[in-house]
Amino acid sequence: MKPYLDVHPWSVVESGWNPEDVRRSESIFSIGNGRFGQRANFEEQYSGDSLRGSYVAGVYYPDKTRVGWWKNGYPEYFAKVLNATNWIAIDVEVNGEAVDLARATSIEHFRRELDMKAGLLMREVELTLPSGARIRIESERFCSMARPEVAAIRYRVTALTEGLEVTLSPGLDGDVFNEDSNWDDAFWEVDAVEASAADGTALVVNTTLKTAYTVGTAMVAHHGTDGEAGEHSELRHFGNRVAVSRTARLATGQCAWVEKFIGLESTLHHERSGVALAAEAAAEAAADAGFDALKSEHAAAWAAIWSTGDIEIGGDDAAQQGIRFNIFHLNQTYRGDDERLNIGPKGFTGEKYGGASYWDTEAYCLPFFLATHPVEVPKQLLAYRYAHLDRAVENAEKLGFKGGAALYPMVTMNGEECHNEWEITFEEIHRNGAMSFAIANYVRYTGDRSYLADKGFPVLLGVARFWAQRVNWSEARNAWVMLGVTGPNEYENNVNNNWYTNYLAAWCLRYTADVAEELQAEQPEVWASFTRQYGIDAEHELKDWRAKAEGMHLPKLEGTRVWLQQDGFMDKEQRLVDELDPAERPINQHWSWDRILRSVYIKQADVLQGLYFFEDDFDAATHAENFDFYEPRTVHESSLSPCVHVVLASKLGRPEKAYELYLRTARLDLDDYNAEAYQGLHITSMAGTWLSVVEGFGGFRVREGVPQFTGQLPAGWSHFRFTVRFRDRLLGVTVTGKGTDVTLLEGATLNVKVDGEVKSLHPAA
Amino acid sequence: MKPYLDVHPWSVVESGWNPEDVRRSESIFSIGNGRFGQRANFEEQYSGDSLRGSYVAGVYYPDKTRVGWWKNGYPEYFAKVLNATNWIAIDVEVNGEAVDLARATSIEHFRRELDMKAGLLMREVELTLPSGARIRIESERFCSMARPEVAAIRYRVTALTEGLEVTLSPGLDGDVFNEDSNWDDAFWEVDAVEASAADGTALVVNTTLKTAYTVGTAMVAHHGTDGEAGEHSELRHFGNRVAVSRTARLATGQCAWVEKFIGLESTLHHERSGVALAAEAAAEAAADAGFDALKSEHAAAWAAIWSTGDIEIGGDDAAQQGIRFNIFHLNQTYRGDDERLNIGPKGFTGEKYGGASYWDTEAYCLPFFLATHPVEVPKQLLAYRYAHLDRAVENAEKLGFKGGAALYPMVTMNGEECHNEWEITFEEIHRNGAMSFAIANYVRYTGDRSYLADKGFPVLLGVARFWAQRVNWSEARNAWVMLGVTGPNEYENNVNNNWYTNYLAAWCLRYTADVAEELQAEQPEVWASFTRQYGIDAEHELKDWRAKAEGMHLPKLEGTRVWLQQDGFMDKEQRLVDELDPAERPINQHWSWDRILRSVYIKQADVLQGLYFFEDDFDAATHAENFDFYEPRTVHESSLSPCVHVVLASKLGRPEKAYELYLRTARLDLDDYNAEAYQGLHITSMAGTWLSVVEGFGGFRVREGVPQFTGQLPAGWSHFRFTVRFRDRLLGVTVTGKGTDVTLLEGATLNVKVDGEVKSLHPAA
Repeated sequence: MKPYLDVHPWSVVESGWNPEDVRRSESIFSIGNGRFGQRANFEEQYSGDSLRGSYVAGVYYPDKTRVGWWKNGYPEYFAKVLNATNWIAIDVEVNGEAVDLARATSIEHFRRELDMKAGLLMREVELTLPSGARIRIESERFCSMARPEVAAIRYRVTALTEGLEVTLSPGLDGDVFNEDSNWDDAFWEVDAVEASAADGTALVVNTTLKTAYTVGTAMVAHHGTDGEAGEHSELRHFGNRVAVSRTARLATGQCAWVEKFIGLESTLHHERSGVALAAEAAAEAAADAGFDALKSEHAAAWAAIWSTGDIEIGGDDAAQQGIRFNIFHLNQTYRGDDERLNIGPKGFTGEKYGGASYWDTEAYCLPFFLATHPVEVPKQLLAYRYAHLDRAVENAEKLGFKGGAALYPMVTMNGEECHNEWEITFEEIHRNGAMSFAIANYVRYTGDRSYLADKGFPVLLGVARFWAQRVNWSEARNAWVMLGVTGPNEYENNVNNNWYTNYLAAWCLRYTADVAEELQAEQPEVWASFTRQYGIDAEHELKDWRAKAEGMHLPKLEGTRVWLQQDGFMDKEQRLVDELDPAERPINQHWSWDRILRSVYIKQADVLQGLYFFEDDFDAATHAENFDFYEPRTVHESSLSPCVHVVLASKLGRPEKAYELYLRTARLDLDDYNAEAYQGLHITSMAGTWLSVVEGFGGFRVREGVPQFTGQLPAGWSHFRFTVRFRDRLLGVTVTGKGTDVTLLEGATLNVKVDGEVKSLHPAA
Repeated sequence: MKPYLDVHPWSVVESGWNPEDVRRSESIFSIGNGRFGQRANFEEQYSGDSLRGSYVAGVYYPDKTRVGWWKNGYPEYFAKVLNATNWIAIDVEVNGEAVDLARATSIEHFRRELDMKAGLLMREVELTLPSGARIRIESERFCSMARPEVAAIRYRVTALTEGLEVTLSPGLDGDVFNEDSNWDDAFWEVDAVEASAADGTALVVNTTLKTAYTVGTAMVAHHGTDGEAGEHSELRHFGNRVAVSRTARLATGQCAWVEKFIGLESTLHHERSGVALAAEAAAEAAADAGFDALKSEHAAAWAAIWSTGDIEIGGDDAAQQGIRFNIFHLNQTYRGDDERLNIGPKGFTGEKYGGASYWDTEAYCLPFFLATHPVEVPKQLLAYRYAHLDRAVENAEKLGFKGGAALYPMVTMNGEECHNEWEITFEEIHRNGAMSFAIANYVRYTGDRSYLADKGFPVLLGVARFWAQRVNWSEARNAWVMLGVTGPNEYENNVNNNWYTNYLAAWCLRYTADVAEELQAEQPEVWASFTRQYGIDAEHELKDWRAKAEGMHLPKLEGTRVWLQQDGFMDKEQRLVDELDPAERPINQHWSWDRILRSVYIKQADVLQGLYFFEDDFDAATHAENFDFYEPRTVHESSLSPCVHVVLASKLGRPEKAYELYLRTARLDLDDYNAEAYQGLHITSMAGTWLSVVEGFGGFRVREGVPQFTGQLPAGWSHFRFTVRFRDRLLGVTVTGKGTDVTLLEGATLNVKVDGEVKSLHPAA
C-alpha cells in the first residue's frame, strides 16, 4: 500500500492530491460524534469515485435478505444503518462553471488534515478550472461533541485570478441511496423539503420505510464576502435537493465564504411532529452561537475525552499517531448516552456490516470504555443487550429452544438476527457467552454487584438456559458435548466440541448458578421476583447447570497441556504459517473456502481467546504451551486477532513477538494493510489495539478489586503513558525503561499492584 | 394432498376442473421427446395461476450467481434451461370475447388425460362464457418421438349454443421469461418474427444472450370448420407474439378447428444461418404428413419404447400407474442421441434446478437406461462427462488442485459448476466418485472393456488424481483421512471421514490402478499414448493410489459391523425416526438448519448407498447390521433415498419394509407427497423407483457377466413383469407367487441365474 499520509502525533495529514485514494481517505478522515457521522466527502460536487455517506446512529432500515439458498431460521431482513440526508453539500460555481476536483485542469495544492486533538476536519485546495480561473478552497468542519445534534462547516473560496463571479450554494440533499442495498429498494420517503433564500435556511425531513424513523436535517447558512456581494440569495431546488445560492464578484485575493450550521434530530429523541422544529431550533441556536464559539466548546469536549483517554507514546510518532487514531474513532462512534445504540464494526465510516453490533462490543470494546469513561458509558453497552433479551428469546425459539433460553444474534441493530450464513448465524453461538462474560467483566471491574440483581441476572439466565439445552449427552464419551458450532476461528465451520465454546458455556452455567445462589442467599426478595418472572425451578435448573458444566467435554491433546480447538483438530495436516507461500496470503483471498476450512490455519484467536478471557483458570505452563502451539498456526486474517496474541505474548515475556503483532493492529487502517479501508474503518478492532497497549505492554489487570500493572516498554519507545478510570479514581500509568509508575490523579486512596508489589496510592494533598 | 387424479393402468386422468391444482397438473401432464418439452399449459389464454414452460434441451442461459455472502471459488454463473418460445398458443374468441378458463362463468365438463401408451396429452372442456355463449374445446397434442424436431396440436371448438362467431388464432410467442431468474435479466434476444396469414405460417427466431444459442420455432397451421368459414385469415402481431386468426360462424353442434404443426430447430443441430429454414422445413414436412400420420408414427415410437421398457404390475392399478408414469417421464426426458444432453432432476417439467445434471444421472439413471435401451443410449451419459473432463480439471484447479486432477461439478449444464453453497459445491465431492463408478458399472453390465481404453480411463485418471490430493495423512490416526466433506446425507455438512466418501475414494484409486495396469499389460500403445497425453508417472502414481486406498481411514462402530457415517457420529443424541413428533416432519420444513445438522437424522442413504454400490464387498451380516442401524435413523427427505433402502430391504428378506419404502417413491409426484409437484417432477428419482422394482423386488444383478434374478412378490400384487436388455439380448422376467420366470425374448443363448440356480436360456426355435 502506497503510504500517502503524513505522520504526526496528533493529526492525520494528506498533503498532495491522491485521486485514486479518495474513497479510502473518505473513511480515514471521517468525523462523527456518536450521534451521527460523516465520511470525508467533499462539500462541493465531485464526479470522481466516491462513497457519499452521512449516517445517523440508531436509524436503520430492514433490507430484505438476499441469499442464494434459503435455510429455515434465516432472518427475513438485514437491518442496516443507511445513508441519510447529505448535509455537507456546498455547490461552488465560478463564472457559472461548476467546481469539481475530478474535472479541474490542475490541482496545485491539496492538504487535508484530521486534527484529532480538536476533532476537526480541514482542507485546503488550490486549483485551476477548465476556464482557466484559479481559486483556493479552505474548509473546516466538525460534528459537535458538545451539542450532539449539531454540525458546522466553514467554507471559503478565494479568487486567485481576476474577475471571478463565485456562487456558493450551501444546501441539503434528501435524494440519497445506499450502495449496499440488496434489492435496490428505496430506503427513505421524503416528507418535506423547504428552504428560504431570504433566511438562508433549509430543511429536509424524511422517514425510513418500514422502520418509520423520521429524521429532520435543518440548515442555517450565512454567506459572506470581502468582494462585491451579489444582490440577493436565490433558491435552488431539484428533486429533494435544496440550496441557497449567493454570488459574489471577487478580485484576486478576495474571498467569498459560507458558514453552515446543521441541526439534526430524529424520532429517537422527539415526537414525530416535533422533529422538524427541533432540528431547526438546533441549527438556529448553533448559528446564534457562531462558528468559533461552537468550535471552542467542541474542542473543550474533546480535551475532556483526551484528558482521561489518551495514550502517549514517546519516541515513535507512527505508533503515537496509530493509537490516537484508534482512540479518536472509538470516541467518535460511541458516546454511551443512549442504550439503544451500540458500536458497529465500521462505525459511521462506511456502509459495510450495516452499522450493526457484533460480539466485538462485549469482547473488545467494553474494556476500553470501562477504563476510559465514567461507568455510565460502558453500562449502556450492557443495557443494550438487556433491552434485547426478549428478542434473543424469540430468536432461540425460532431455532427450537424453549423455556426462556436466549440466543443473542450474531449481528443486530434492534435485537433481531441480521446475518444469514447458517454456519455463522446458527452456529457461531459463542457470542452468546460473550454477553455473560461482559456482565461478569463489568462486575469484576466496577465492583457493582447491584447490576446483577437488576439487569444482569436475567441475561445470564437466558444464556445459561440456552447452553443447558444446546449440549447433548454423548454415551460414547460419557460427557456433555456440543455439536455443530463455529468457534471464534471462522476458518472452521460446523465443528464438534470447539474448546472455546464448550469452556465458555461451562463457565456461563457455573457463573450463573453462583450468581443465582448469591441472590437467593443475599437478596431473597429479588430472587423471589426473578423466580416468578422467569419461572425458575431453582433446585432442578441450578443442579442441571452445574452437572453440565462439570461434565462438559473439553478436548485436549494427549500428553500435553494443549487444549484442542475442536474434535479432530489433529487429523489436519500440521503445517505452520511459516510454511505458507507468501504469494498465497492472505489465504482468504487466494484459497477456496473448503481448502481454508480443512487446513490447520486459524483466522483469529480461538483457544487463545479463551485463555485470555479466563486467564487465571490456567497456569503459566498451560498459557505457554498453548501459545506456542497456536500462534504459529494463526494467520490473523481477522483484525480482532493480533491484540489477544499481543496480550498473551506480553504476559509470557515475549516482547518481540508482542511488538510484531502489535504492528499489525495499530496502523491497520492508516496504512491500510488489507486494502479495504475504502469500505470504512475497523472500529471495533481499534479497541483491541488499545487492549494491546494497556493490557499487553501495560500489563493492566483487575484481580480481586485491585488494579495491577506490569509495564514492558517496546523497543524504540522512550516511554508510554496512559490513564485508567477505576472505581471513581483516575490512575496515571507511565512505563519507561526504568519500570512502571502509577499515580493517583483523581479520587480516594487505593491499593494497586505495580510490577508485582502492592502500593497504596493517596490523593495529592 | 387431495387426490384429484384417477387411477388407470396406462393413463393419468383428471376428471373435473381443479383450478387450485393447475400448476401441479401442468407438471404432471407435461409432454416431451428428449429434444424439447412442454408443461401442460392450456393452448388458449389463461389468466389464472400458471407456470408457462417450453424448454429446449441443451439451450441454457448462464444466470448471474446470487449469493448472500460470496466465497472464493464460487461459480460466477448458474446455467439454467430457460423458458423458450411458446409454441402451443391458440387464442380463442367467441363473438369477440376471449376464452379463458379462469374467467368462464362456469365449467360444465373438464377432462384431461395423459395417454402414456401413445404419448398423447388430451383435453376436453365444456364451458359457459360470461356472454352466455357455450362451447366445447377438444385438444390433443404431442412432441413427436419419431421426429424429435416436431410437435403437433389438434384443437377443436364446438358451438353448444346458437350463432357463435369463433375465432381461432394459432401462433407463436417469443416474449417469454423465466420465473426463476436471479436478477430479472433478459435471457433472449429476438432475431426474427414472421408470419403469413395466407399460408397460415409463422416463425420466431431468437438467440440466448451470452450463450448465443439460436432457436427457430416454425408453425404451419391449418384452419377448418364445418360451419360457415370466414373470408380470409388475418395476421395478429404484438411484440414478439404473432398469430394467424380465422373466424368461423357456427350453428349449434358445428365446430371450428386448427391443426398446428411445429418445427423446432436450433444451433445445436444447424448452422445459425440455417436454423430458421430447418425449422420451417420440419413444420412443413409435418404438415404435409398430416396430423393422423404423425400421431401414428409417434405412437409406434412409443410402442417400441414400451416393448422393451415396460413394467407390468398385476392386481394393483395404482402401483401400475405409478411405475409407468415414471418410465414414461424418463423416456420423455432423455433419448440418448446427443452427448451434449443429460437428465435434469426436473426434466422439462419445470424451471427448478435449472435443468442441469447431478450425480443422480450416474447413480440412478444409468442403470435404468442400461437395462431398457440399446447400449448407445447409456453410453452417451458417459460421453457427456468425458466431454466435460477439461472443465472438471479447471474446476479442480480453481480449488487448488494440480496435475490434471478433475473435480466434476455438483450441478452443471456445460461442465462448469453451477451451484454455490460451499458445503455442497466444494464439499459434496463424492459425486466425483460416481463418475468413476458409472464407468465401472457400465463395463460390468455391458462387458465393453474397450470403453476404458477410449474415454473411460481419462475420466478415471482425473478423478483418482483428485482423491490422491484430497486426502491428507493424519499422524494422529496413522491413516489417510478426508476432512471437510459433505456426504450423500446432506443433513450433515463439513464432516470428517464420511465413510461413503472415503470408501468410494479408496475404490476409485484401486480401480483406476487396476485399469491402468491392465491397459499397460494388454494395450501398451494405448497406455503409451495416455501416458504421454496425461503425463502419467506410472510407477509413482499407481503406488501412491494403492497406498492411499489401502491406508484410508474407515470409521467403524467398535465391536460391531456398523460403518460410521462419519467421525463423531456417535456423539449425537441417538434418537430414532419413530421418536419424532409427526407434526415436525418433514424436519426440513420445521427445524432450523443447525438443528438438523446436529441431529442424528439422515436425509438419504449414505453408508447404505455405499453398501448398495459395493454390495459384494460386504457379507450379509454387515448388510443387515448397517441396515438395522441406519434405516431407523433415516427420514428419507430426499426423493433419492427410499429406492436404495428398498433394494437392501428386499435383499435382506424384509418385504414389508421394502414395500413400505417403495410406496414413498412410486407415486411421489402423482400423489404429490411433498406438495412440490407444481415446481416440476422428480425425474431422476423416477429411475430410483424403477431400481426398486427391478433390483429390489426383481433381485436383478449382474455378477461376472451373468444376470441374476431373485423375485419377491409384494403382497397384493398378482404378478409383475419386466424386461431387461443385456448384451444384445432381451430378457423377459415374470415374478408371480410361484417364483421367478426368465425367458429369452431376443438374442443368443445366455446363462442366467434365477432364484440361485443357473439356467441356460436359448432362443426360441
